[in-house]
Amino acid sequence: MDIFKFVTPEIIFGRGALQQIGFSARRLGARKVFLVSDPGVLDAGWVDKTITVLGDAGLEYTMWTGVTPNPKDSEVAEGRQLYEEKGCDAVIALGGGSAIDAAKAVAVLVSNQGDISSYEGVDKISHPLPPIIALPTTAGSGAEVSQFSIIVDVKRKLKMTIISKSLVPDIAIIDPEVLGTKSAELTANTGMDALTHAIESYTSVAATPLTDVQALNAIRLIANFLRKSVASQSDFQAKEAMAMASLQAGLAFSNAILGAVHAMTHQLGGLLDMPHGEANAILLPYVMRYNLIASMEKYAQVAEAFGESSLGVGKRAMAEKAISAVEEMARDIGIPRSLSQVGLTDEFIPKLSENAVKDACLVTNPRDMSRQEIERLFREAL
Amino acid sequence: MDIFKFVTPEIIFGRGALQQIGFSARRLGARKVFLVSDPGVLDAGWVDKTITVLGDAGLEYTMWTGVTPNPKDSEVAEGRQLYEEKGCDAVIALGGGSAIDAAKAVAVLVSNQGDISSYEGVDKISHPLPPIIALPTTAGSGAEVSQFSIIVDVKRKLKMTIISKSLVPDIAIIDPEVLGTKSAELTANTGMDALTHAIESYTSVAATPLTDVQALNAIRLIANFLRKSVASQSDFQAKEAMAMASLQAGLAFSNAILGAVHAMTHQLGGLLDMPHGEANAILLPYVMRYNLIASMEKYAQVAEAFGESSLGVGKRAMAEKAISAVEEMARDIGIPRSLSQVGLTDEFIPKLSENAVKDACLVTNPRDMSRQEIERLFREAL
Ligand SMILES: [Fe+2]
Ligand SMILES: [Fe+2]
Repeated sequence: MDIFKFVTPEIIFGRGALQQIGFSARRLGARKVFLVSDPGVLDAGWVDKTITVLGDAGLEYTMWTGVTPNPKDSEVAEGRQLYEEKGCDAVIALGGGSAIDAAKAVAVLVSNQGDISSYEGVDKISHPLPPIIALPTTAGSGAEVSQFSIIVDVKRKLKMTIISKSLVPDIAIIDPEVLGTKSAELTANTGMDALTHAIESYTSVAATPLTDVQALNAIRLIANFLRKSVASQSDFQAKEAMAMASLQAGLAFSNAILGAVHAMTHQLGGLLDMPHGEANAILLPYVMRYNLIASMEKYAQVAEAFGESSLGVGKRAMAEKAISAVEEMARDIGIPRSLSQVGLTDEFIPKLSENAVKDACLVTNPRDMSRQEIERLFREAL
Repeated sequence: MDIFKFVTPEIIFGRGALQQIGFSARRLGARKVFLVSDPGVLDAGWVDKTITVLGDAGLEYTMWTGVTPNPKDSEVAEGRQLYEEKGCDAVIALGGGSAIDAAKAVAVLVSNQGDISSYEGVDKISHPLPPIIALPTTAGSGAEVSQFSIIVDVKRKLKMTIISKSLVPDIAIIDPEVLGTKSAELTANTGMDALTHAIESYTSVAATPLTDVQALNAIRLIANFLRKSVASQSDFQAKEAMAMASLQAGLAFSNAILGAVHAMTHQLGGLLDMPHGEANAILLPYVMRYNLIASMEKYAQVAEAFGESSLGVGKRAMAEKAISAVEEMARDIGIPRSLSQVGLTDEFIPKLSENAVKDACLVTNPRDMSRQEIERLFREAL
């Protein structure tokens, strides 16, 4: 094992944990928080609840909901301007992966200046960020604990992957009650994103025992609870399990990084604004089949985490069962079967593949992958 | 599940990680570090290696090795005086649990003043501590990641359990190479301490999925590698596995707390200066037998982690196998069989039990335990 690092934020988890957001912000020295959210979360009433809690803690706030799915560099620049105009001193993100990633990017800009594209890649951030608290409203992105922020470069039409320990929020507050207002479709998509995080980090070349145990338990929880969570908005046992799964998958991938699925889907988000979880869910079995010869042992354990029986089954056949278990899950919860169904056409594939091969997530994929192989996989999934 | 918190330091793990201690200290803003170690570690040459690395990073240091096993409040007071005299601004602990606990206590005093006994119990520390880096030289205490410091109150002849998020070091550096100079006896004792951490945190009433996965993997690693690590000073695969086990057990117990074994052995350390790991190893099976009716399911999983087969075995019988696996391990690595062998006599038991019932670790034991029951268990293990 090489020398590795493992970083996590302070975590507060449980039903009703949202109530601790005011006290937590005060503890970090905040006086005027920059509250980042999105229109959907606003409609569901969670922003109002948060504002009440912040007020009770004697905190001022400036609200910013100018974030779209697959957040753009231009949006982040606007956020930064508002943060500075209003004299904020801390960031609270209340939303899905997009809102949290955008909030992180604003935090980078207010303390490091310049354009967000200067920070693309690994460890480019030099100055410490203002305090960040993240409260996820979806069970999927893991952005509340990760050292990632993914921002669209509008001009280049690609997603920039920014990786830095500085991007790990100071405190992650995970409240499963917040998940009760999500649509079945969003639950399905974000749940498959979490599954992709768990499987890619588990088979990453940078995986460690600390990340493996989290990834494997995330898979177990998703195997047992994602269907139920999609089936019912009020199954809070399932919501709590999925919140934990997303958190554990986040801890795993933040420290073990990801693989080819994310390297490829970042481009689909950047070029075609495709929903991230859906794109992952479609591509995951194709990439798993390609990676199988590198990760047979671990896929066999993924299959076991899915509850597949290994009785009288050889290692290779067991590894195959991991792939079919993923496909079965996607079918059961209504994920589209192909990328063409969600807007991809063949003409985009060369450009997508050219960008994917440069994505930071490809480095930790367990099997080497050339641009040609990426093109082939995009076509297979078309 | 109630709302819970999960806190860890930044972790750097791997053979040769000691080399990163200088850069890590600089990153935390240190200029003159207070270097806490013990005579054994000094003799083995690790302090000299550390001093070289600190010098290369342009750091000054003051060395303090005035720590004994079961560190005393009087020693901590001396350490604090030296820290202040020399104008240090950060603490580096290089040693076993005793050195790390003492270093944490010194850090508490320099920023919070008064006597260390004022901070006994949970969450009594109000001012932030100076930066702390911990590099463990034994695979057992988990103090490098924990929010615990255990200090002997010399007058009251008991161990004070101090629990606070502030006690989590900023950075834990775990270098398995450092374990290669430990005696077989110390390897055995500290390994059984780690096993006790894993089992007590796994069955703690405050256990969560985040701590469970770490605890269970720690048990698996200890089951497979502790014997080998005791058998050979140069089996670095075993050293690395035990370093990981100790770390994972530490992450588990720091966040899920412990149970009756530690509540009882803290007193044996305080009153009789008994080695902590040995005392745990002797008491663990007795407490497990008592706790079995509260933790049958989890003990069955402990047995599985030990590699016991559940084929055709009922849940209760499987739970029993966890206890016999622990006993077998202790026998194999030469742990004494009874507390009388390590200096306990019956006359001390009432006082020990009176103190144990007040220990913070008893609160999370899965089965209620009165003073009378503690006395009975001490006598059983005599
Ligand atoms: Fe993702
Ligand atoms: Fe211990």
